[in-house]
Amino acid sequence: MNKYDAKNLKIAYIGGGSRGWAWGFMTDLARDKDLCGEVRLYDIDIEAAKRNKIIGEKISAHPDALSRWTYSVPETLQEALTGVDFVVISILPGTFKEMRSDVHLPERVGVYQPVGDTVGPGGFMRAMRTIPMFMEIGEAIRDYAPHAFVMNYTNPMSLCIRTLYHAFPEIRAYGCCHEVFGTQHLLCQMLKHEYGIDGVKRQDLYTTVTGINHFTWLTSASYKGMDLMPLYKEFAQKYAAGGFSEGQDNNWMNSSFSSNQMVKFDLFNKYGVIAAAGDRHLAEFMPPWYTRDPETVHSWKFHLTTVDWREGDLERRLQRSDDLISGKEQVELKGSGEEGHLLIKAVLGLGDLVSNVNIPNQGQIPNLPIGAIVETNALFGLDRISPVFAGPVPQNILPLIERHILNQENTLKAALTCDRKLGFTTFMNDPQMGHVTPEDGLKLFNDMLENQKKYLPEGWFE
Amino acid sequence: MNKYDAKNLKIAYIGGGSRGWAWGFMTDLARDKDLCGEVRLYDIDIEAAKRNKIIGEKISAHPDALSRWTYSVPETLQEALTGVDFVVISILPGTFKEMRSDVHLPERVGVYQPVGDTVGPGGFMRAMRTIPMFMEIGEAIRDYAPHAFVMNYTNPMSLCIRTLYHAFPEIRAYGCCHEVFGTQHLLCQMLKHEYGIDGVKRQDLYTTVTGINHFTWLTSASYKGMDLMPLYKEFAQKYAAGGFSEGQDNNWMNSSFSSNQMVKFDLFNKYGVIAAAGDRHLAEFMPPWYTRDPETVHSWKFHLTTVDWREGDLERRLQRSDDLISGKEQVELKGSGEEGHLLIKAVLGLGDLVSNVNIPNQGQIPNLPIGAIVETNALFGLDRISPVFAGPVPQNILPLIERHILNQENTLKAALTCDRKLGFTTFMNDPQMGHVTPEDGLKLFNDMLENQKKYLPEGWFE
Amino acid sequence: MNKYDAKNLKIAYIGGGSRGWAWGFMTDLARDKDLCGEVRLYDIDIEAAKRNKIIGEKISAHPDALSRWTYSVPETLQEALTGVDFVVISILPGTFKEMRSDVHLPERVGVYQPVGDTVGPGGFMRAMRTIPMFMEIGEAIRDYAPHAFVMNYTNPMSLCIRTLYHAFPEIRAYGCCHEVFGTQHLLCQMLKHEYGIDGVKRQDLYTTVTGINHFTWLTSASYKGMDLMPLYKEFAQKYAAGGFSEGQDNNWMNSSFSSNQMVKFDLFNKYGVIAAAGDRHLAEFMPPWYTRDPETVHSWKFHLTTVDWREGDLERRLQRSDDLISGKEQVELKGSGEEGHLLIKAVLGLGDLVSNVNIPNQGQIPNLPIGAIVETNALFGLDRISPVFAGPVPQNILPLIERHILNQENTLKAALTCDRKLGFTTFMNDPQMGHVTPEDGLKLFNDMLENQKKYLPEGWFE
Amino acid sequence: MNKYDAKNLKIAYIGGGSRGWAWGFMTDLARDKDLCGEVRLYDIDIEAAKRNKIIGEKISAHPDALSRWTYSVPETLQEALTGVDFVVISILPGTFKEMRSDVHLPERVGVYQPVGDTVGPGGFMRAMRTIPMFMEIGEAIRDYAPHAFVMNYTNPMSLCIRTLYHAFPEIRAYGCCHEVFGTQHLLCQMLKHEYGIDGVKRQDLYTTVTGINHFTWLTSASYKGMDLMPLYKEFAQKYAAGGFSEGQDNNWMNSSFSSNQMVKFDLFNKYGVIAAAGDRHLAEFMPPWYTRDPETVHSWKFHLTTVDWREGDLERRLQRSDDLISGKEQVELKGSGEEGHLLIKAVLGLGDLVSNVNIPNQGQIPNLPIGAIVETNALFGLDRISPVFAGPVPQNILPLIERHILNQENTLKAALTCDRKLGFTTFMNDPQMGHVTPEDGLKLFNDMLENQKKYLPEGWFE
Repeated sequence: MNKYDAKNLKIAYIGGGSRGWAWGFMTDLARDKDLCGEVRLYDIDIEAAKRNKIIGEKISAHPDALSRWTYSVPETLQEALTGVDFVVISILPGTFKEMRSDVHLPERVGVYQPVGDTVGPGGFMRAMRTIPMFMEIGEAIRDYAPHAFVMNYTNPMSLCIRTLYHAFPEIRAYGCCHEVFGTQHLLCQMLKHEYGIDGVKRQDLYTTVTGINHFTWLTSASYKGMDLMPLYKEFAQKYAAGGFSEGQDNNWMNSSFSSNQMVKFDLFNKYGVIAAAGDRHLAEFMPPWYTRDPETVHSWKFHLTTVDWREGDLERRLQRSDDLISGKEQVELKGSGEEGHLLIKAVLGLGDLVSNVNIPNQGQIPNLPIGAIVETNALFGLDRISPVFAGPVPQNILPLIERHILNQENTLKAALTCDRKLGFTTFMNDPQMGHVTPEDGLKLFNDMLENQKKYLPEGWFE
Repeated sequence: MNKYDAKNLKIAYIGGGSRGWAWGFMTDLARDKDLCGEVRLYDIDIEAAKRNKIIGEKISAHPDALSRWTYSVPETLQEALTGVDFVVISILPGTFKEMRSDVHLPERVGVYQPVGDTVGPGGFMRAMRTIPMFMEIGEAIRDYAPHAFVMNYTNPMSLCIRTLYHAFPEIRAYGCCHEVFGTQHLLCQMLKHEYGIDGVKRQDLYTTVTGINHFTWLTSASYKGMDLMPLYKEFAQKYAAGGFSEGQDNNWMNSSFSSNQMVKFDLFNKYGVIAAAGDRHLAEFMPPWYTRDPETVHSWKFHLTTVDWREGDLERRLQRSDDLISGKEQVELKGSGEEGHLLIKAVLGLGDLVSNVNIPNQGQIPNLPIGAIVETNALFGLDRISPVFAGPVPQNILPLIERHILNQENTLKAALTCDRKLGFTTFMNDPQMGHVTPEDGLKLFNDMLENQKKYLPEGWFE
Repeated sequence: MNKYDAKNLKIAYIGGGSRGWAWGFMTDLARDKDLCGEVRLYDIDIEAAKRNKIIGEKISAHPDALSRWTYSVPETLQEALTGVDFVVISILPGTFKEMRSDVHLPERVGVYQPVGDTVGPGGFMRAMRTIPMFMEIGEAIRDYAPHAFVMNYTNPMSLCIRTLYHAFPEIRAYGCCHEVFGTQHLLCQMLKHEYGIDGVKRQDLYTTVTGINHFTWLTSASYKGMDLMPLYKEFAQKYAAGGFSEGQDNNWMNSSFSSNQMVKFDLFNKYGVIAAAGDRHLAEFMPPWYTRDPETVHSWKFHLTTVDWREGDLERRLQRSDDLISGKEQVELKGSGEEGHLLIKAVLGLGDLVSNVNIPNQGQIPNLPIGAIVETNALFGLDRISPVFAGPVPQNILPLIERHILNQENTLKAALTCDRKLGFTTFMNDPQMGHVTPEDGLKLFNDMLENQKKYLPEGWFE
Repeated sequence: MNKYDAKNLKIAYIGGGSRGWAWGFMTDLARDKDLCGEVRLYDIDIEAAKRNKIIGEKISAHPDALSRWTYSVPETLQEALTGVDFVVISILPGTFKEMRSDVHLPERVGVYQPVGDTVGPGGFMRAMRTIPMFMEIGEAIRDYAPHAFVMNYTNPMSLCIRTLYHAFPEIRAYGCCHEVFGTQHLLCQMLKHEYGIDGVKRQDLYTTVTGINHFTWLTSASYKGMDLMPLYKEFAQKYAAGGFSEGQDNNWMNSSFSSNQMVKFDLFNKYGVIAAAGDRHLAEFMPPWYTRDPETVHSWKFHLTTVDWREGDLERRLQRSDDLISGKEQVELKGSGEEGHLLIKAVLGLGDLVSNVNIPNQGQIPNLPIGAIVETNALFGLDRISPVFAGPVPQNILPLIERHILNQENTLKAALTCDRKLGFTTFMNDPQMGHVTPEDGLKLFNDMLENQKKYLPEGWFE
């Protein structure tokens, strides 16, 4: 009598050759006793998908696995999608060659990007090649799996989701991102280190989430009867100067992704709202206050993640992939910390869940445009994702967020129409570009398009 | 470090002399180990409040009580409200004399009202005397307890809440009503009797609640992985003709409040959405399809609740009050089934809760006017009530609901301005009045105003 | 360098066989020295179109004609539309047989309709057969004349325009109706008879027009520096009892279309806003206050226009058509009083013009739904029709108007989906049907559908 | 019977000592035969007002004057406002000392402002001292002349109007600015010089005006049947490089206010919409593309208007004031080219008029926030100003405009609450400040506040 057959699920994984997300997701599935079924690993790099099939089967065969999943490698989107209940999308648009152009070319006009995949000149250019891919995926879902839920992890998140809804307005797509989790974790650390309250898990907090992906904000936060906002105010002031790290002060230097939260604290001290993403992401949405040059970045105790580093990291993951396949490394059943499989269970009706999610604004943030992709809490239940009303974005941070939302809409349109004029003025309207002359900007714009020519529609070059 | 002191709460109960609601509420408090504090029973009938003080103290002294509460009887609203954390409002506007005019006078133009306290000519007239009372209460809250949460149980619910927000736009008021619970209970009965699934509690269901108080609808309902909508469709068709009762077919005749759900089933069969209130209430929001005359009402297996019956019922409750005070009847610690104390705990931060509630529309129902009082689910948490997005009201029931919302807005304005023209055209625009001539209507309107003259502002009679 | 060639216009006239509208339009064209070109008279009754071609050519050849037009009779919509600048639509959906069912069958449940072509059971049923026709026309315009302006005169006006935009959202369609002109004329009569100000033309007035077609209202009216609202207040009170006629009191009885304005005055006295359409139309939008039975109608001094009368009138017009063709009657160059040709000139850029028009609400009436077809003033200029902001509909008449707007949206959906449930509940939600039992209503609904079966999609009868 | 007595008007002129605007306005009044009455010249510099009284009386006594006006110099706002029909506001907030700080201090962080009175650091600071003045004026109008129409000429225009509506939401205020006229005049010049069409007056054009004051845009423009947009496209391309001047190329250098329209052309070439204000104003709303340094400004052929120049200009106007009073210079009856008196006549009911105006957005621009002060066309008629629907702002310029609108809202709030945090982040969010470091910005912010301390509420310095 159940609407879905949770023990015989069909999942398509677009980007199923990924080294990282896919492994975590397959592990989370194997650890869940309520779900079972089939995963179709689709990837334009079919060999990578085949390797992941082997790894997935190993995970599923692990003696501690609570459910045994079937893995296949379809050759076409049609084959991947037909008849599935869920679609997971986690792709890499282009290669490190294009990413190098996204991240590093703008340095020649003095723009330093810690990530370069969301906004800024890098995010814009990544969107130019990603949007056509998501149009194709969205149309394939419309044609082959119109009733499936679609869970995206790809960046630029907001534009990926926006594109899916543009391609197929009835799509049931949503975007998941763990950046908010990190800030919730920071609140738990604060409770532990500043107030001696140990053992609080991020799920124990209640937070009002608002804004857009990677530029998300908490307008309220509580733990049991405690209002965490005044506590965070003290916390942010105390650590404004040197930053906060759980252990010793320079821990942040150990990892390309770490920080001492100084950007986050500075934003709180300026705006009074908790910015809820990693400092590397937050800095990119602002004028170059934190990223003027590498020294400035260093003084704020976070990192510019280089493509060199990413290439090395990929090497390590490829090696790990080899080791997992060869058996040199044993698969482990360690949870990823992501919530994807829990959201799947919730929409199957196996337990309501409140979590943050990226979906079109239907009014959950009444002072942002309807249809813009926003990140707020939502109530996940059988066959539905009901946003929880976040209230209006506070007036002082509204201009910061609205600016990116309007840019994203123009980015979408430019990508769909290959419109160089619209593309260029949008590219220039990013806060990181405020100091660049139109002449330098135009040359950069043209060069960056040229650098990813093979991933762009021909319309750009006619 | 907690924001509120849950063990030292201060609650003002406006209408604290009530025989019924107050007893249940005081009992629910005594049964809750997480809350403790003081309740101020304010009533214009101060003797009734004093009697409830005695009963409240007995309840609190019950050996099984988990918390011991203090009761007092303030003499003024200022005294009642100053410094409280919560305000509960449950008043009877006027006496049975005015209620008799509300309910029965319209019978002379062929309008039969099962309840007569929400819409229809009776609801309109009750609003005329209630709105000035709620203006006074709202202004007192603004002056003496502006930060308190305000929980209303009085009818007409929507207009009471609307008036509070009109008097004091920053008020944190919400309205609680158990009618939706009854329909959720009916779904549990359906699961039990039709599908053999026993032991489901209404809290185990997930329902999307939408609409306005007493004319509330469920657009989705599920239990674990089961979609209850197709099950209810079969259920409503099966029992369309004779109605559904848990036991024998004529059980509904035993109580003035009971029904065999035939109106509810008929509405589902016509509109495809689950109407979620008692049949007596639902019938009043429609044209006189179900209430043309007493025979029609009987054929639909529900009741016209007469004021004679209410007078008898009050006698019984007064007697019970005597018996509780004298000790002839012992107080019992039986829960009321209401959720008021749970909502209190949630906004104190003692546990998030999703429940249906009447608050201004902030966009949770995007195709109803902003500011209209709507009933949807909300997420209750520390210091906040965040509506859960209910989605647009289905297009086919939208005209039914919107009509009453617009009438309510005009009812408010007429009451505030003592505008006989606006009052009369609004009175006539109720679906129950569609067949009444303007001449008969005007005479009825004038007579009903006259009948409650002592509770109305003088402006009506100048 | 001009965008349009006003001296070589191409106009398609859908319903070009009409006896009445077409003649007036062709005459207006011939009298205008700024326009010239070609009119294609398209009609499913091709013989009627051919007859009008002869009459049109006679008009164009009249010695006093200021411009000479070419007339043709295309055989298909494609032929009619390809390459035109303007489309005029003025069709009769069905025949008098169906109209007889629309207007008179509801009398059996006590519903008397003065016109029966806009709302009420007759308007609903007419919409059921008209909407598919307008879908076809709208799609043909999309395919063959997407950039043309489209001027509709057909009823039900609001639903015809709504359907065109549904078929082709980019259409540039608007609806023209002279009912507002009549009320403006009444204001001129008032100035003359009550205040001795003679010679005022309706174009000299400034009026704020709001509402929907045939239920249009003036929220302000002025002449030079005079505010006409207080004058109209006195006027409406003075003539409330017996009505106003320019000459003797019973003039209204001479014509099936006349009235003594008593409904209009009564609405003003109840609502304080000037209803701006003929009394026959206005009465249909209200509960049966004015139409309970023929005696009531007579007491309000207006008429139920019977289909018998219409058949006689058609006979007269057919005879006149014969006479015009045979030359027994000479064509005359008398202006129609319509503004169609002036609106054409305005959008060609030959002179801005403010006039009332039916177009989708883009916010010109902020408290009505976006997209609903509303009637307000607009500024017509080259290639654009810019609505003039009318302000919110006054709160007291808002429920009256909103009800019909929501019904129209459901009427459209029912017609497009052949949905009997939605159709029936919409049919029953009309104010004229408020007293009808569901049983009687359902039988009427089914019979009326059956009566026009040949004009309906098969979906209704599956 | 007329609502207003046009021959006995009462007008309060706040800032009635102004040398320039006041003279033109008094002359326009004297030239208008339809209006007559009394003007009250109110100014905190009462001597200046008294001098203007003498000049006004001379103008009114001019033999060619068509109406004779009375002038008085009230001592208080109450005296000035009580009983008036119209209020004109044209004040200078502060002195050249404060203006020097506004315009020139930001040069130390590389911000060069051509005007410095609207946006940018100068406009922000000017707003800080102007908003309290307009709060006082708005409250006085509420108290003494609530029904008057209020016509403002003071900058920052949008914030002045916004403040008046904040102080008194029922105010009937609107802002007039001639910048759009200049661009309309440029279109006439284009017709003459490029197309040989001579004698076209700006009133002969139809333009769709949208945006905000000094950053206004024309989305359509036509003359008779001609669409001017494609003509302007050619025009803007032809003169992109060297600019357009009616006579010789370097005419622009003759006046501090002149330009060769190169900024306007560049904006058109980038965005495809006609920017409709002087280049000096337009440049300030953009990133420092046109104002990076004085050389860049010069290369775009417009001017940085220095406060030195303004001081000299004031000297000249004071001298002229002396001369007019002494009779050394005779008063002339030359029209100002402003439309203020025509708008007065229109709202008196003496003739409808369409003109551009600054009023709150009620939906005339549906994709800008409701309540924001926008500049569009409106239809002026008796007792009403009805905006003409401008349509959505084109998507590509929307981010440019929305940014300033959101900044203005925060500017208002900062001024009203003396909030240094909100003030600073708003100050930094201006496009001209995109390259300034937070450290430099904060120092500038504090210094500029200090420089106008005597005009600010004490709250800023507590």
